[in-house]
Amino acid sequence: MNTMDPDTMEPHGLTQRISGEKSSMTQKAVQDYYPDDIAVCYGCGKSNKHGYQIKTYWEGEETVCRFQPQAYHTAFPGYVYGGLIASLIDCHATATAASAKYHEEGKSLGIGTVERFITAALHVDYLAPTPIDVPLELRGRVKESKGRKMVISVTLSAEGKETARGEVVALKMPEDFLSKQK
Amino acid sequence: MNTMDPDTMEPHGLTQRISGEKSSMTQKAVQDYYPDDIAVCYGCGKSNKHGYQIKTYWEGEETVCRFQPQAYHTAFPGYVYGGLIASLIDCHATATAASAKYHEEGKSLGIGTVERFITAALHVDYLAPTPIDVPLELRGRVKESKGRKMVISVTLSAEGKETARGEVVALKMPEDFLSKQK
Repeated sequence: MNTMDPDTMEPHGLTQRISGEKSSMTQKAVQDYYPDDIAVCYGCGKSNKHGYQIKTYWEGEETVCRFQPQAYHTAFPGYVYGGLIASLIDCHATATAASAKYHEEGKSLGIGTVERFITAALHVDYLAPTPIDVPLELRGRVKESKGRKMVISVTLSAEGKETARGEVVALKMPEDFLSKQK
Repeated sequence: MNTMDPDTMEPHGLTQRISGEKSSMTQKAVQDYYPDDIAVCYGCGKSNKHGYQIKTYWEGEETVCRFQPQAYHTAFPGYVYGGLIASLIDCHATATAASAKYHEEGKSLGIGTVERFITAALHVDYLAPTPIDVPLELRGRVKESKGRKMVISVTLSAEGKETARGEVVALKMPEDFLSKQK
């Protein structure tokens, strides 16, 4: 079982092994840089009190997210339901995309906010049942970056065993995206 | 807005337009035929009081599921988060697979229980933002059936507009599946 760092309230070891310029992103989670007024996502919005509030951190060239499912997030007794796995992969991937693009554009976190990415496509391969009583670890990597489009690959592991693998095509949200939906 | 049928507590019209032999499946939802001891899925388990408890019905050659998101199931203000959409597609597809296979094997619902299908792969294309304040309608179809494997395609619509499309590769759960995980 992970122990918690009393200063950061994150699992011990999370901020270790950090290298490279992205280390500045690890003091706070990527999601903490999202604009407040749209930080309401059920999966990752810091303002959504009902949601999962997942947190994405950079560790070198990868992003990591650790998440402890609740007992009721089950598919079959003892195992995590696939919808939660898809949700975690989705939100971790869009956070990876948003922050990687921000970094790619030479911006420094803490100055302004990170622009959101939206999911165009999500693919998940379920490799093995995922046990529900241990913390899950997701690791994200940029597979492709081209203009507004990012392709992010994500692995999900439990106790060191990879149980799911995902790929997300994420698009930088156009500035008029929300107003155009009205 | 949908009104509810007081007898079935399902939206009016849900049991209409039913034809073919699968109509026997429409008196109860597919999920109501799942074995009680494993009907705990967060997405569709009738025994999971915290979960979505989605219901899948046959209408002719398609399955249908209607679901009203909660206000907090949001991605951005006013729109459904992608993880919920993936969850609904996943559970509706496995229910479609399980019941279609049951029917294909010439079995009658109500005698015994429907064997569960597990998800091997899930793909979702997000076509447009999905409004959160209206009931969502999912429609499933069998795309391929071969041995233990079923491929199910699902559309998700809001107010008649298709906003997401999914495909699920589902596998009939081996009888020793859960015991082998111990």
